[in-house]
Amino acid sequence: MDEQQAGSQDPELGPWARHRRTPLYATPRLTAYRDEVTFPDGSTGPYNWVQVPDQVRIAALVDGAILVCEQHHYLTGVMWQLPGGAVDPADASPEAAARRELAEETGYRDGAWSSLGALHPLPGATPARVHLWAAHAPDPYPASPEPVEADLKVHHVPLDEALSAVRDGRIRCAASAALVLAVGRQAQQGA
Amino acid sequence: MDEQQAGSQDPELGPWARHRRTPLYATPRLTAYRDEVTFPDGSTGPYNWVQVPDQVRIAALVDGAILVCEQHHYLTGVMWQLPGGAVDPADASPEAAARRELAEETGYRDGAWSSLGALHPLPGATPARVHLWAAHAPDPYPASPEPVEADLKVHHVPLDEALSAVRDGRIRCAASAALVLAVGRQAQQGA
Repeated sequence: MDEQQAGSQDPELGPWARHRRTPLYATPRLTAYRDEVTFPDGSTGPYNWVQVPDQVRIAALVDGAILVCEQHHYLTGVMWQLPGGAVDPADASPEAAARRELAEETGYRDGAWSSLGALHPLPGATPARVHLWAAHAPDPYPASPEPVEADLKVHHVPLDEALSAVRDGRIRCAASAALVLAVGRQAQQGA
Repeated sequence: MDEQQAGSQDPELGPWARHRRTPLYATPRLTAYRDEVTFPDGSTGPYNWVQVPDQVRIAALVDGAILVCEQHHYLTGVMWQLPGGAVDPADASPEAAARRELAEETGYRDGAWSSLGALHPLPGATPARVHLWAAHAPDPYPASPEPVEADLKVHHVPLDEALSAVRDGRIRCAASAALVLAVGRQAQQGA
């Protein structure tokens, strides 16, 4: 594949410098690159990384419960996870993606939305972020899961049980765990 | 590269089936695959994913403060992150990797260690996990950062400020955020 010459004086790189970027392969959801870089100590070498779409996760709060999706993930087995998924090219914004994913997976829409920022799931391997939202008191409509979600079940889990599920490993998606803990902390401070 | 025939009746795959696995390329820290699968709804298609090393993150608690590493990451810019890194092939276990990383990055060793489980940072793209630990009252020794960490600074951050740093986005590594929130919850419940 083509190699690209990249500027080595990019101020956003801080103590790093980039000398060359080589795309290794591209798929619709994952592109891999090898960059030749100067490390912060002045030595040089390759830095391999992947571009994957940004993601969204939503803490949807309905009558004191939080909506939790249970499904069998191809790579990681059965997991509890907050509703969410990848930001698609057709989504106008991460918030639009979050509203679409919540509606597709759970049927819930609208309510009062607020941002809880964004996290880097694997900052050494990808610049992708997971954008986090809270949706208070959304309204129920029919769901429309994707083919990979045909086995998806939606649970209404009391917030205290969701916090226990982070501790005992039922919720082991990193962004879901962080979002449940953040919402739990908000609820406690608001009480 | 070689294609591998994989059994399609793997019970761990639940409602999924795998028909073929094709390695796309391999580097020391990242291997990419394309699997041909049957999705939970019965349709078929490709599933692209990557294997990266498991990681570790440590909440090291010293005199009411938590140790936070600040460095300029190549892909994501300046970040606050809890000490940690990849599990190396030479590490006897994730806990051994955590003890090694904490000592390399901060100089702190020993103390009272406890597991806080493991999270999947990107369960749709990789089966890798981040193993989480708390280290209470470790002892200080000289640090020995790696070449990519030459700019690494270690801060002793009061736990309340670390919790604020999750909220305001200074701590935006997903596993670090989840671990700070979990330790903050433990501290509050123990108080």
